[in-house]
This record gives sequence, C-alpha cells and structure tokens, in this order.
Amino acid sequence: MKKVVALGEVLLRLSTKDHLKFSQAIEMNADYGGSELNVLTGLSNFGMKSEMITRLPANDIAETALMQMRKYNVGTNFIAKGGDRLGLYFLEKGASVRGSKIIYDRAYSSFAHIEKGMIDWKAAFKDATWFHWSGITPGVSQGAADVCMEAIEVASEMGLTISTDFNYRANLWNYGKTPGEVMEKMVAKCQVILAGDYASKQYFDIDPEGATEKELQQSLCEKLKERFPSSEKIIITNRKNISAMHNTWSAVLYDGKNLLESESYNITDIVDRIGAGDSFMGALIYGLNYYEDQKALDFAVAASCLKHTIYGDANLVSKEDVEDLMGGNVSGRVKR
Amino acid sequence: MKKVVALGEVLLRLSTKDHLKFSQAIEMNADYGGSELNVLTGLSNFGMKSEMITRLPANDIAETALMQMRKYNVGTNFIAKGGDRLGLYFLEKGASVRGSKIIYDRAYSSFAHIEKGMIDWKAAFKDATWFHWSGITPGVSQGAADVCMEAIEVASEMGLTISTDFNYRANLWNYGKTPGEVMEKMVAKCQVILAGDYASKQYFDIDPEGATEKELQQSLCEKLKERFPSSEKIIITNRKNISAMHNTWSAVLYDGKNLLESESYNITDIVDRIGAGDSFMGALIYGLNYYEDQKALDFAVAASCLKHTIYGDANLVSKEDVEDLMGGNVSGRVKR
Amino acid sequence: MKKVVALGEVLLRLSTKDHLKFSQAIEMNADYGGSELNVLTGLSNFGMKSEMITRLPANDIAETALMQMRKYNVGTNFIAKGGDRLGLYFLEKGASVRGSKIIYDRAYSSFAHIEKGMIDWKAAFKDATWFHWSGITPGVSQGAADVCMEAIEVASEMGLTISTDFNYRANLWNYGKTPGEVMEKMVAKCQVILAGDYASKQYFDIDPEGATEKELQQSLCEKLKERFPSSEKIIITNRKNISAMHNTWSAVLYDGKNLLESESYNITDIVDRIGAGDSFMGALIYGLNYYEDQKALDFAVAASCLKHTIYGDANLVSKEDVEDLMGGNVSGRVKR
Amino acid sequence: MKKVVALGEVLLRLSTKDHLKFSQAIEMNADYGGSELNVLTGLSNFGMKSEMITRLPANDIAETALMQMRKYNVGTNFIAKGGDRLGLYFLEKGASVRGSKIIYDRAYSSFAHIEKGMIDWKAAFKDATWFHWSGITPGVSQGAADVCMEAIEVASEMGLTISTDFNYRANLWNYGKTPGEVMEKMVAKCQVILAGDYASKQYFDIDPEGATEKELQQSLCEKLKERFPSSEKIIITNRKNISAMHNTWSAVLYDGKNLLESESYNITDIVDRIGAGDSFMGALIYGLNYYEDQKALDFAVAASCLKHTIYGDANLVSKEDVEDLMGGNVSGRVKR
Amino acid sequence: MKKVVALGEVLLRLSTKDHLKFSQAIEMNADYGGSELNVLTGLSNFGMKSEMITRLPANDIAETALMQMRKYNVGTNFIAKGGDRLGLYFLEKGASVRGSKIIYDRAYSSFAHIEKGMIDWKAAFKDATWFHWSGITPGVSQGAADVCMEAIEVASEMGLTISTDFNYRANLWNYGKTPGEVMEKMVAKCQVILAGDYASKQYFDIDPEGATEKELQQSLCEKLKERFPSSEKIIITNRKNISAMHNTWSAVLYDGKNLLESESYNITDIVDRIGAGDSFMGALIYGLNYYEDQKALDFAVAASCLKHTIYGDANLVSKEDVEDLMGGNVSGRVKR
Amino acid sequence: MKKVVALGEVLLRLSTKDHLKFSQAIEMNADYGGSELNVLTGLSNFGMKSEMITRLPANDIAETALMQMRKYNVGTNFIAKGGDRLGLYFLEKGASVRGSKIIYDRAYSSFAHIEKGMIDWKAAFKDATWFHWSGITPGVSQGAADVCMEAIEVASEMGLTISTDFNYRANLWNYGKTPGEVMEKMVAKCQVILAGDYASKQYFDIDPEGATEKELQQSLCEKLKERFPSSEKIIITNRKNISAMHNTWSAVLYDGKNLLESESYNITDIVDRIGAGDSFMGALIYGLNYYEDQKALDFAVAASCLKHTIYGDANLVSKEDVEDLMGGNVSGRVKR
Repeated sequence: MKKVVALGEVLLRLSTKDHLKFSQAIEMNADYGGSELNVLTGLSNFGMKSEMITRLPANDIAETALMQMRKYNVGTNFIAKGGDRLGLYFLEKGASVRGSKIIYDRAYSSFAHIEKGMIDWKAAFKDATWFHWSGITPGVSQGAADVCMEAIEVASEMGLTISTDFNYRANLWNYGKTPGEVMEKMVAKCQVILAGDYASKQYFDIDPEGATEKELQQSLCEKLKERFPSSEKIIITNRKNISAMHNTWSAVLYDGKNLLESESYNITDIVDRIGAGDSFMGALIYGLNYYEDQKALDFAVAASCLKHTIYGDANLVSKEDVEDLMGGNVSGRVKR
Repeated sequence: MKKVVALGEVLLRLSTKDHLKFSQAIEMNADYGGSELNVLTGLSNFGMKSEMITRLPANDIAETALMQMRKYNVGTNFIAKGGDRLGLYFLEKGASVRGSKIIYDRAYSSFAHIEKGMIDWKAAFKDATWFHWSGITPGVSQGAADVCMEAIEVASEMGLTISTDFNYRANLWNYGKTPGEVMEKMVAKCQVILAGDYASKQYFDIDPEGATEKELQQSLCEKLKERFPSSEKIIITNRKNISAMHNTWSAVLYDGKNLLESESYNITDIVDRIGAGDSFMGALIYGLNYYEDQKALDFAVAASCLKHTIYGDANLVSKEDVEDLMGGNVSGRVKR
Repeated sequence: MKKVVALGEVLLRLSTKDHLKFSQAIEMNADYGGSELNVLTGLSNFGMKSEMITRLPANDIAETALMQMRKYNVGTNFIAKGGDRLGLYFLEKGASVRGSKIIYDRAYSSFAHIEKGMIDWKAAFKDATWFHWSGITPGVSQGAADVCMEAIEVASEMGLTISTDFNYRANLWNYGKTPGEVMEKMVAKCQVILAGDYASKQYFDIDPEGATEKELQQSLCEKLKERFPSSEKIIITNRKNISAMHNTWSAVLYDGKNLLESESYNITDIVDRIGAGDSFMGALIYGLNYYEDQKALDFAVAASCLKHTIYGDANLVSKEDVEDLMGGNVSGRVKR
Repeated sequence: MKKVVALGEVLLRLSTKDHLKFSQAIEMNADYGGSELNVLTGLSNFGMKSEMITRLPANDIAETALMQMRKYNVGTNFIAKGGDRLGLYFLEKGASVRGSKIIYDRAYSSFAHIEKGMIDWKAAFKDATWFHWSGITPGVSQGAADVCMEAIEVASEMGLTISTDFNYRANLWNYGKTPGEVMEKMVAKCQVILAGDYASKQYFDIDPEGATEKELQQSLCEKLKERFPSSEKIIITNRKNISAMHNTWSAVLYDGKNLLESESYNITDIVDRIGAGDSFMGALIYGLNYYEDQKALDFAVAASCLKHTIYGDANLVSKEDVEDLMGGNVSGRVKR
Repeated sequence: MKKVVALGEVLLRLSTKDHLKFSQAIEMNADYGGSELNVLTGLSNFGMKSEMITRLPANDIAETALMQMRKYNVGTNFIAKGGDRLGLYFLEKGASVRGSKIIYDRAYSSFAHIEKGMIDWKAAFKDATWFHWSGITPGVSQGAADVCMEAIEVASEMGLTISTDFNYRANLWNYGKTPGEVMEKMVAKCQVILAGDYASKQYFDIDPEGATEKELQQSLCEKLKERFPSSEKIIITNRKNISAMHNTWSAVLYDGKNLLESESYNITDIVDRIGAGDSFMGALIYGLNYYEDQKALDFAVAASCLKHTIYGDANLVSKEDVEDLMGGNVSGRVKR
Repeated sequence: MKKVVALGEVLLRLSTKDHLKFSQAIEMNADYGGSELNVLTGLSNFGMKSEMITRLPANDIAETALMQMRKYNVGTNFIAKGGDRLGLYFLEKGASVRGSKIIYDRAYSSFAHIEKGMIDWKAAFKDATWFHWSGITPGVSQGAADVCMEAIEVASEMGLTISTDFNYRANLWNYGKTPGEVMEKMVAKCQVILAGDYASKQYFDIDPEGATEKELQQSLCEKLKERFPSSEKIIITNRKNISAMHNTWSAVLYDGKNLLESESYNITDIVDRIGAGDSFMGALIYGLNYYEDQKALDFAVAASCLKHTIYGDANLVSKEDVEDLMGGNVSGRVKR
C-alpha cells in the first residue's frame, strides 16, 4: 500500500444542529478536522496508507482527536506533543439563502507554536511516496511555515511527490510575512497543485486572461506552469453556489499540455459542504496514484460530490461508492 | 434609538421535530411567539428598541416566555400579569407535498381576558414613535379588541405612527362581533397597512379587479386607500407555494401613487416558514424608519426571505445578513 | 368496515439519524415494519379494518412490534408465537447523490421458521373480504412459501379478493427453489397484481415490448393478463430517481382492457421513501374497495406520494390528507 | 379475562428532560396520562381487559392519546368526542432536594364539559365486573361530577364492584360545590377505597386518632368504615420523602376487621414518581381480582414500587416483574 | 432594588452529556458562565439588580453569552468589546467514584487582555451599593489584576460594600506575580470575604490551628480578621465529597466575634455542582442585604444546596424555592 | 510494550436511553462489545498492546465495530472475515429496584460459524506474551470451541501465559456438548483463572465449603487449584447488589498459598455495569504484568469500580484515573 504523509493543523469543530443559529444552540456537535487531515481521512477510506503530522497538546480533547484519526485509519505515529491548546472553530450551518458562518478560534494553538526540529521527517517519510500540504499551514505562524519548508525539503530530497492545495485564508497570514514571499519557494517544489484564481491572485498576483471560463482556467494553468515549472499537474475545482444547499461542482486538470475536464454535478440537499475541497484533493491523490489523469480527475470530482452528503469535515465514502456515482448512478437509489 | 410598541398575544409553540407526525412525536420543541412579538423580535435584531404589551399568567411557563423576550432584547416593562393560562399551539412540521398543521389551544388565555385599563398606555408610549398591532389581536376576544382600540386611540393622540397587519384568522372572531364592524375604525387610524386580498375580502368585502396579478394588487391598494384615507403605505406580500419547503416570495408597496415592486426570491429547503409574514412586518417597520420606501420594501422582503431559514417563530438575522442578501448573495456561501 | 388480512414478516428497522453513515452513528432510530404490515398500517389509517398474520418470538422486542401494530389499529389476533428472533434491517439514510443503504439481518427469524398449520386461516379470514401478500413472503423460506400458499388456497375457497405485490428481492430465495416455480401458482389465484418489469422478468421471464414507456407498460400488463387470466387489475408504479431526495412518482392500472394513467408527482425534499410502494398498495386496496378504478389509482398515487414525507416504514396520513393532495394542493400550505 | 372500566380525564403531559428547569428547556417530552387512565394502563399490562371512559376533542393531539391507549391495550370503544381542547400539564422534574413542579392547564377541557347522557354506561359496563373512579373526576366540573354519579349508579345496579381513589387535589373543586357534599354519596356506593388522611380530612372532616402511625391508620380505616358501611376494603399507602429521588413506600389494607401490612420498600434513584399511586390502584384491582387480600396488597406495593423506575405516568411492568420483586429481588440484577 | 456590580471573565462551557467521557462525546452542551457571572445570575433570580463587567470579543459566540445574561436579568450595559476570543472550558461530567474533569482553554481571551481605562467604573457603580470580585479575576492576567484593583479603588471611594471569594485556581497566576503580592491589597479593602483554608494558605500563608473542624474554622477567621481588619464578615463553606454525586454542604460566618453555623445538608443525586460556591456567594450577598447574619447564612447554604440540582453554571432557583428548603422541605415533594 | 491476544465474539449492543423500557424506546444507542474485546479495550487504555481475534461479516456494521476497536487501540490484524451476520444484543437499562434486561440475538453469527484453520495463530501470537479467552467463547458453538482449543494449544506451545474468565452463560452451550466436557481440558492449560462459585458448579460440579464468605472463597480456590494444578492465580470477584444502581464490589486472589483480599468499594449512582467483570479482567492482566499480586488485585478492583461510571461495554479510564482511586480519592472531586 502506498503511503501519503501530510502536515497541517487539527481543529476541533463545534457545529450547530438542525440549522440553528448560534444564539439558539444549547448543544453543538463536536468533531475533528483540518484541511490536510481531511485529505488523509478521505484517501484512507479508499485504501491508501496515511500519516498525519501535526502538533497536539497533552489533554483529553486532543486525545479524542487522535482516536478519531485511528478510527478512520489515519496514521498518528509522528505527531508532536506539547503546547497549550487545540485550535477550534465554530460552525453555524446555514440553509437555503442563508450561508453558513465559521468563527475561528485557532490562535495560540499547539500547532501554531510548532518549530523546526520537532518532527523527525526522515522517519515519517520512510516508505512514503507522497507528501501533501496546503496554504493554510504556512499561513498559521512562522513556526508552521518553517516546519512546512523543512518537510518540503526533506520530501524533495527523498524523492516523494509533493502536492499542495492553495487554500488561501484571508484571516491567517498574521505573523508579518506576505503569503507571496512564503509560498513561492514552497510551491516551486510541488508536482501537483490544486489552484484557484482567487488564491493565485493573492499569493502570486497572477491574473488569468480569457473570455470564457474554460479560457480563464487554461490561462491560469499556463501561467502557474510557467511560474512553477516543476509542477506536473495543475487542477482547478469549480463550484457554483445556487443556495446554501444547492451547488454545482466540477474540475479541470492541466497536465502541461491539455486541459482535461470532468463531468459537472448538480448537488441539491447538501448535508455538509465543509471539507469538500479537501475530499477532492484526497481522492485526486488516490486517483493520480492508481489511475490515468482523466479517470483520476473524474474520481476526485465524484468523490468530493459525495462528500457534500456526509456530515463532518471528512469524506467517509468508499471507492465502491465513488465508482457507483462515476458509473452514472446520480439518483440515490436504495442499495439493498 | 427609535422605539416600537406592539400589542398582542404571546403563545407557547410546541412543534414536532424532524418532520414527524404528532402521532410519532414523543418530544416537542418549545418556543414562544405570536404575530406581534415576532414583529418586535425581528426589528430588535436590527437595532431598534421595542416594547411588547400583552397579558401573561403568573407561572413559570409565562416566566420563560418573558426570558425569551429579554434574551432577544424585547422590552417587557408594561406587561400585565393575571389570568389562568398562556395560550399555546401545536405545530406539525410538514415536508414536500405535505403541509404543516397547526392546532390552536389559545381559548381562555390570560390575554383573551385582558380588559381596558389594565395597560398604562401613556407610560408605554412615552419615548415611542410607532405602535403596531395585527388583526389577530381584536379577533381574540371583546376585551382584546377593546384594549386594542384603547391603544390605537392613545397612540393616535400621542402622534405615533400606527401600523397593522390584517392577519385574518378564520378560527378566531368567536365572541359575537363580525371582523368588519371591529376592524373598520381601528384600521381607519393606521398609516401603514400590511394587507392581503383574502383578509380584505373577509374584513371589508373588498374585491380587487384586474387581469394580471399586478393589476389586482394595484386595485386592492387603491380600494383600501379609498376606504382608509389616513393610510400612507399599503403593502402586500406575495407567496407562491411550490411545496412545503419551496416557495417564492416578494411584495409590493403602494404609497398612494405608485406601486413599488420588490425582487422575487426563490426559497428552497425552507427550515421554518411560520412567522415569515411577521418578520416582513418587523423589517418593514425598520425600513420605513431608516430608509426610503423602495429600500424599505427590499429590506423587508430580503429579511423575511431569510426568516424561512430560521427555526422558530421569530427572525433572528442581523441587518448585515439582510444587506448581504439584498446585495445579491443568494448563494449561501460560507462566511469565514 | 371491510377487513383486509395480510401475511408477511415483521422486521425491526434500525436507521441512522440526520443522514449519518453507519460508522458515524452512536444511536439509531428503532421502528417496526415489513412490506405487508406497511400495507395494512396505511389502509388502517384510511378507516379499514386489518389483521396482520406473522410469526413472532416471545420477547420484549417483538412485544414492542405488537404495540406499534395496535397503536396504528392493525389487528394482531392471529399472530403465531415462537422461534428465536425478530428479523431486522439496518438503514443508512442517504442524501442527494448518495443513495440509502440497507443491510438485512433477517435470516433464521421466527417468521422464516413458520410452518403450515401454525395459522388458523379459517378464523383469520372470517369477516374478511381481502387477502394480501407480497413476493417477499414466499422468498423468505420454504415454510413461509408453504404458509403463503396455504393462505391463498383458503382465501380463494372462502371467496376473498387476493392481491399481491411482486416485490422481488434478489437477496432472498435462498432455500433451493427458483422464484418462478413458487410464484406461478400463487399469482395464478390473485385478482389484483402490483407488478414491475424487473420482477416480472425475474419471476416469469416476461419481457415487455414497445417503444415508449406507455407501450412497455401496456405490453407488460397484457402479457401478465395472458399468463394470469384470473387477474382483474394489474398495476405498475413508476418511480424516476433524480436524487435520493427528489423523485417523480406515478402509476398505471390495467383493467384487462384499458390502461388508466395517474397524475405524475414531483417529490422533492423526501423524508423517507422506504415503504412508499407498500403505501401505494395499501391505498390501492382501500381505493378498489370504495372507489371506481381511476379514482382508486389516483388515490393510491397521492397517498404514496405523501408517504415520502413520513418518517418510518408506514404511511400515517389520513384520507383527508390524501384527498387534499388529490384536489390539487401540492403546495404544502400550512393548515390552521 | 375480567374487564375493568374507569372514568376520568386524559391529559397531555409535557415534561422537561434531564432535570432541566422550565426556563432551560427548549424541548419537552410529550406523553398522555391521567389518574384513571394510569390505573387501567397498569392493570392491562398484567393481563386484565380495560375500557377507558373519557371525552376527547376531535384533533390530532387527542388522536395521539388514543393511539397510546391502544398501544398499551386500554379499550377506547366508549369515549365521547367533542369539546375544545385536551387538558394538559407541565412537569418540571426535580432532583435531590428540589421537588418536581406541576403546572396544570386543564380548565375548559373537553372532559370538563362532559355531560350526563354522553356515555352509554349500560353498553360500557356489559361484560365488565369492576368500575373505578378517583376524586379528581368529580373535582373537575359539575358535568364531570354528574357523569361520575351516573356511572356509579349504573355500575351499582349492574352489580359491578366499585373502587375509588380519594386523590384530593386542592386546585380543583372550583365549580361551586364543596368536595364533601359531592363525594359523600359517591363513596357510599364503593366497595374498595384507596384513602389518605389528608384527603379524608378535606372530604369528610375525619380525624384519625392514635399515637403510632399504625394506630392512626387503623383509626382512619375504622372511621371510614363507619361512615361508609358498604366499603369492604380500605387501603392506605404510605410514602416517606427522603429526597426527590429517594422515597420509602408501603401500604396497609383494612378488611373491616384486620389491618394487613405490606413490606416497606426503600426506593433510591427514582426515575419518575408521577402516577405511582395510580399504579398501586391498578395493581390492587388486579390483585383483589386474582389473589387473597395480603397477596393483593403485597402485589400492589411491589408493582407501584417498580413504577418509580418507569418514565411517564403509567406503570409498564409485567406481572413477572412484580412477582420477581415480591420474591425478594430488590437488587436490580441483570436479567439475561 | 439594590444593585450589585461584579467584574470577571465569562466563559463558554462545553460539557459532555449523560456522564460520557470526552472520547465518547459527539455532542456537547454549550452554556456560559464564570464565577462572578454565576454570582450575579443567582442573585438576579432573587430580585436584586445586577451589572456584569467583563470584556468580550465581537463575535456571535460572545453575543450569545450576552443573550444568556439578558435572559437571566443580568445587566450588560458596561461590558467592554474587543480582543480575539471568548475563553472556554470543557467539562467531562463524572459520576459516582469518578470525578468530573475540567480542561481550561481560557488563555489569550478578550478578558485576559483587558486594560485599565477600558471600563467606566464611575458610571457602572452609579446607583450600585455592592461590588463583587473573586480571586480568579486577578489571577487571569496583569491587565485583569489592574482593572480589578482599579474597580476596588473606585468602589471603595464611592462607598460600596466590597465582597470577594478567594477562589484560588492553581492553573492561573502565570503572568509573573505571586498571588500573595497581588491579593493582599485587594482583600484589604473588602468587607465580606468568602475564604477557604487552602486558598488562605496559597494566598497569604495562613495556617489555622485547632483540634476540631470548628476550631480550625474559628482560627482561620480570626487570623484573616487580624490580617484584614476592614473585613466585617468572613465566611467559609464546607463541602464533604462522598462521591461525585453525593456531598454534604454547610457554612460558617464569622462576624468578628461569633462563628455562626448553618445547617448541614446531605445532597444526593447531584445534577451539577459546578458553580455551587458561586451560588452561595450570590445568595449570601442577597441575604446580607435583606436579612440578619444568621438568616443570610442559612439562606446562602440552602440556595447553594439547591444549585446542585440545577444543570449549568448558574443557580436558577427562586427565593420561594430557597425558603421552602429552609423551612425544612428537604424531601423533594411534588409541588402542584 | 507487552502484547495480549484474546479470542471472542464481538457483538453490536443496542441499549435504551434514560432507563426507558423497550416498549417506550424509539431510538437506541449503538455500540460494540463482547467479553474478550472489553478485556482488551480496558488494558489498551492502560498502555498495553492488544490484538483481538474474532470473525466478522463483510458489511458496514462489522466495519463500524472494527473502527471502534481501532479508535481504542485494539489490534485488528488477524480477524477472519466471512459469514452472515454480527451477533447483537438488546439492553434495557434498569433503575433502582428494576434490573436491566438483556435480550441476546447472537445465534447464527459469523463468529458462531468460525472453524479451525481460519486463524493463523502462530502469526497472531508472534511478539505476544499473553492469551485470554472466556467461557463464553467455547459456549457459542462447536466451531468456536474448536478454535479456542486450537488457540490454547498454540499459545501453550509458544509459552504464552493463558488466562480465562469462567463467565458461564446459561443461554449458550446449545450445540450438544456439556460445558464440563469442553472446559476441563481448556482450563487445564491456564495459569490465571477468574472463577466464580456458580460457574464452578456448572462447569465442574465444585462445591466450596465453609461458614464465612472468606472460607467459601478459600475453599473454592483450593478445590480449583487441586483440579487445575497448572493454575497459578485464581481470582474471585464479589458483587453485592443493593439496587440496580448501587452495588458493592471487591475481589480476592489466591496464589496457591495465600488468599489476598482487596478493598471493598461502595458504588452508588451506577451509570453502566455491563462489562464490569471484563474491565476487572483487563486491569488484572495489566496488573499481573507490571505489579506484584496485591497491587495487581487492588488495581483491578479499582479499575473495574470505575467501569461502573462509564457508559458502554468497555472501560475507558486511564491508569492515572485508577491510581487516583486506589490512592483513596473515592469522592469524585472535580479535577481542574
């Protein structure tokens, strides 16, 4: 089994039930997620091995996060312990014309205080073939950025494929560096990039050109390829928000020459769209490891389409579920 | 801060969960509402001051209703105490092609036994600029009608703007008077009327004429204006029921000359439509106090559109939420 | 009141809440159902008398199933007691593009070990005018098939109308007989057949012919009528799955000459579609007893349309609810 | 099977969960009970036939009450329909040193407006051997008292045994009669009396004399026997409140000569004590029908002891459960 | 109505349900508390006016905390806004021999970053007669200690009575000062001290002397009185832990001469003991304002005894509830 | 880390909430347990390695059981896959004088159909030092008994310590063998025996002799030691049932010479006593590996005492929690 390693923060997620407003809620659901963990949870369900790298405080809340990782087959062997608190976020689930709201409370977390040398990257990467990180990680703190760069360098040396999800978050990047100066050299060592036009503008001041959406996507991919020549696959997902519970969803993959396009799905009655992008990334990593590009793209879109029907941050569907949807069963027939 | 006073009955609402039938429910959600209270709760969220006038029994259930009012910043300083019981209603939440069912159990309530002289209207209206009542209040009992007329007269004398929502309820008006003879002189003193064709027919035997919906609305407004010359704004909301969880929603405002029209919203995945009309009224009062007419109308429609996504009788969205929707964000994007 | 008797297995249903995956659920809803019981529960709500024939173990779980039957006015006077266990099934409620999953755990149940002579059919059929069974029953075990044949013979002798729902389940029929050899002589004695193209193929190797859906339906009905000359009404329901929570639903009835067609309903925001076919059958039996064919068909389609909005296996709507929908109220208006 | 008929009001019970105060509760449990119904539900579980006589409004809440009766095997064949509302009560479950609170909202109920002639007592009593009523019934309204007297007279004529539970409620008896003048002639026709010293004082101004508790009980029984010579068994239960969740519980039975005494139980960790007295009465009726007096008394005390462990108004334990406790198993061993 | 002002931190409390371990919980209850807020909530229920001084971030979680304060009649007119986050704590409810666990996550909160000058103390104290603070507040941060001292000085100048609860928390006091050097001059200006032997040792290195518990209490009070001559009442509560759900509870009050003793309560089946000390303090402040010392002490003990039966941080019982318990009703009788 | 291997059946447990009767429950909690799994879960929490051997069907319910094992650090590397169903049991939680009820539904399970050769015992025992089984396993079926004997033989050959818990279940042993003939040769190879007088009588017809409880325990141990000379430690737990929620709990350990005695704990307010014996066994295995006998016994008693406060089958407390209780903290103080 191929093994994927990821670096990122793990957060406690506290979400209201039944679309209640925060002010109405006297109880909240508690789960654990985070962009990179969501990626790993998703691909572990498809049968890959995974190893989550993060830093957690020594308390029972963090211990519960660890239990959830083990439950879903995510490796926890190289996690650093220390610091004060687990970051968390509050989620008010929207409905219809009312969007969901997220309140982050992740400052001063154990992960924000991670430092170079805390992780034994050589050991963590042993037997691994892939390293994944997202733009959230270096946005958290100088320490997190340092550790991310450290990981990228070791991974690069050891010959792992490196993937990134741009994942720009405006409320991060508060430690005195601009995203651009940090991200540039990190992305430069990646082979697989999950990009986006807004993030590309924020990080690298790239403006795609074109009249149609496809032209804009093609242009963005070409400009990114030019800027980051080591990139082999550049992927862009495309969400249209019709309401909080009705979206369309598709993606394109640029292999340096061609722009492959996926099917576009119409997703109504959305249960939980948090982590849909991460589920795409997880399924894409799986796909790029076991399928040719077009099928990898289709697999990733179908898998993340299904994520919208799963409560929580992480995608819990199986490979068979995804293949069923790819095979055209969008109808939600009862499986007996 | 401008202050709005309203008179009406407060009811305990007992609703089934997860679309269960009454016969399946072994637990019910408990909340407190009522047309005029819902109006005040909504506008308090936008930042106006409010004062709810009603009559409550001296027991812990009524005390809990008071706590909810305070929680949502609704004034409770002039509420009369006495009588036997808090009226209540049972709500079976429908779904899809099955409509919701309401069973009222409000007879013999403390409010139904309210009498003239129980409320110190002069004190209640001090510092207030607006008085609101709905057609439910005089429909409850002779006493409630008397107190409503008493309030209208004092408000009128003291120069408050008076608004009414016709709100015709066929299962009220059981105390020996016809709605028409009671409502006529009350509406005659109002400046703002939230009307409807069915209620206008029941109350005043008014039949609008016209070939198109807009013509019918224009006609109804003109006939009402003619009948009630003191009315300055006549408003009609327009709901189309596609299913129990999918409606369209818009409104028009007649200022004596022009019929202003709002945007029409397509509302799917409705969480709770009870109180949507009240949330419209609350937002309209807010809008008419702070905006010109067209924006007031647009604000009221957008606010009440959002109410459909909020559990409970009352609208709990903020001015920012409404402005966001008015600004075109109907897509339910996640706000981070 | 006319009385309908049915034979079938009663199952405990354990379903996840809020669209959770099995792996996320730490609690499950518990209810009791089964195709034939669902039929009876539905028609009891419309005011017919019913009597459920099954075999239950002597434990508190089965006792609770009995209580549910009594609650919903289903007769329990002729149920055999004995055997080891109540069959059960696990239901993972899907959403959107993810279909629901059912895991059956019904082998070795008390009903599977039913044997001829355990039921006093003469007594059970006294005062009854109708007997109903579905293809699930003879698929369970040789004993169940024997008892079903026994019932059909006595019912036939005693002049009851006999109805069947083909209800082919691929995971049954494990006791060494092919469906065809068992079903042939059972269906031969039925006057009312709820058929389906897939089941007709599996049971009787019948292939309808035609270019349009209507031609295919007509063809299937004619071939079934030819094969089973005693059949007086052949009915086919028609579901289109747009997503797990959005279906269309209609039916046709063939009276030996004409193919009557029902309205087609668009059902969004489905709450629970398990048992929808059974609710159709129940309402159809009611309709065929009290209405002419077209109205019976329309009643059955409207009733089962409403079932999609009801949690649980059984249809709990009233005749008034169905008539309201038949009268064109598809809009889910609030009933006060 | 012997059949017991009872007359009384059925109430919706709305209770807070997890010992929450009313002001904290956003949901309440909904069940149906009432003193006489609780008696019947209890004895139905032991295997007697029962028939509940009451008056219910024609709405879905009352329909749900009926379903609960059927579920627990209580007959509903002679219930009158009509009137406005089902009476209800709110229950705030106490804990430890905090007692439970009940807020009644039963005025103006359908049952309060029952009148003579609404019940066909001859039919209801056919095949019955026992009629039960409690002091709550005549306390509700003049109509309820009239119907209760009517029932007692017919029962007496038809030779049924008549039992009463004094059940004095200070917040009833508001219709202009004193309890004494109403109760006297009703109790005079009873053979079995569940009395109490406080109620005996309120109803009949009887003061027991004696130095010890036993002497007081003996004295009360003798005075009641003297006052009501037709009484054959007089029973007194004895509860000591140590905390809201810890009581002791015993009873005595006077047969006109001897004062039989039961075991005294120590009941900790009480789940729900509402209806414990009713469960005693139900088990006593069962016991007096099938056992000699001492065993009947012991059975009644043990059964009602178990009621304290059952959520809701009614006792749901089986005869085997009671016999197990009577046999000395007070230890709550796991039954596998 | 007399008005009490308090300064302290408000925390979100996230607690597991039904005694689950953190690792089992997929949902948590959410409430808002904090030592000083709990004091105010308790005394507001008895009918005093109150004003809570704290600092809150500008987000919907803090807004919900504000709503809870208003609901329970706690004044919120002088609360500072700003900073990053609301402090929070996780509570794992123990049972029997397993104690509850609290995990604090309050570092870096808005309140921890409060600074002198942020609160208009003169305005806040207008019309007030009492100021309360606890040892938690100066333990939080230098800023909190500065603001607390600032408040004490203004209160002292304006002639308010000042009370303190020692409330030593070992996991606070991390900002470079020892508790002793900070507390000394603060306590020196207090008239009412809720002390404890452990806290007195930690803060002031005071060791009581004596052979019996009463002698030790007397000694501690005398030593405190000597150290803090301005103190007029020194109070010590006395909890004995028999299990997580069974405690005894009493208190003594030293008025400079005599040691008054309260009744000792035996509290079984505890629902929630968090905040019991705060509820004592709140009731004591009420008592000292309206009663003589012995009754004030008894009232405070009885009130806080009842707190053990109330879910959440704050005491929600009424004066009547307390008086009922003081009157000897420890038995938890049902109040109808 | 030392590794313990166990063989046994894994069951789905469906339990009612809040002490409801089965007939009241519309939802049940779902967890996974089984005697041997409970033993491993408990000792994994203390930091030992474990490996669970069982046989599971290939469905999502069994997959969820696997996830729970991983979550709690129980090894799942040698589990056989196949068969039809996961066994299950229903648990009705009792209260006070009402005992809990268990309804087993475990016949025909995947584990019941396990056969010799399905498990690679040599591989499973690699690196392990201990093998545990209970009397439930050979009671399930001939196949389970064969596999258990097979495991014992390999473990014995490979030099592992073998422990057994007699665990006699009267409703097993249905496959044609008497417990005695099967158990004799299995127990003969064990070094550690958790015995009981009832099981010793059922299995081996051993009657202890003595006047006091201690003499009876000593006698039982001596007779067992005589019958099974290879046994090195014989342990007996001692539960006294005061009510369903109040027990006392202690144990003795016989080392071939002396009878060591533990402290006796008084456990009130029990949350869940299912699995307490298993938690004792798990903690005993841990203790015997790391402590001398007396401390091992004390550790096991304290650990299992804490189990009574934990919902579910398995003990989830840490070594620190146990040591805290052993250190005398029986009072359930709040740990901050």
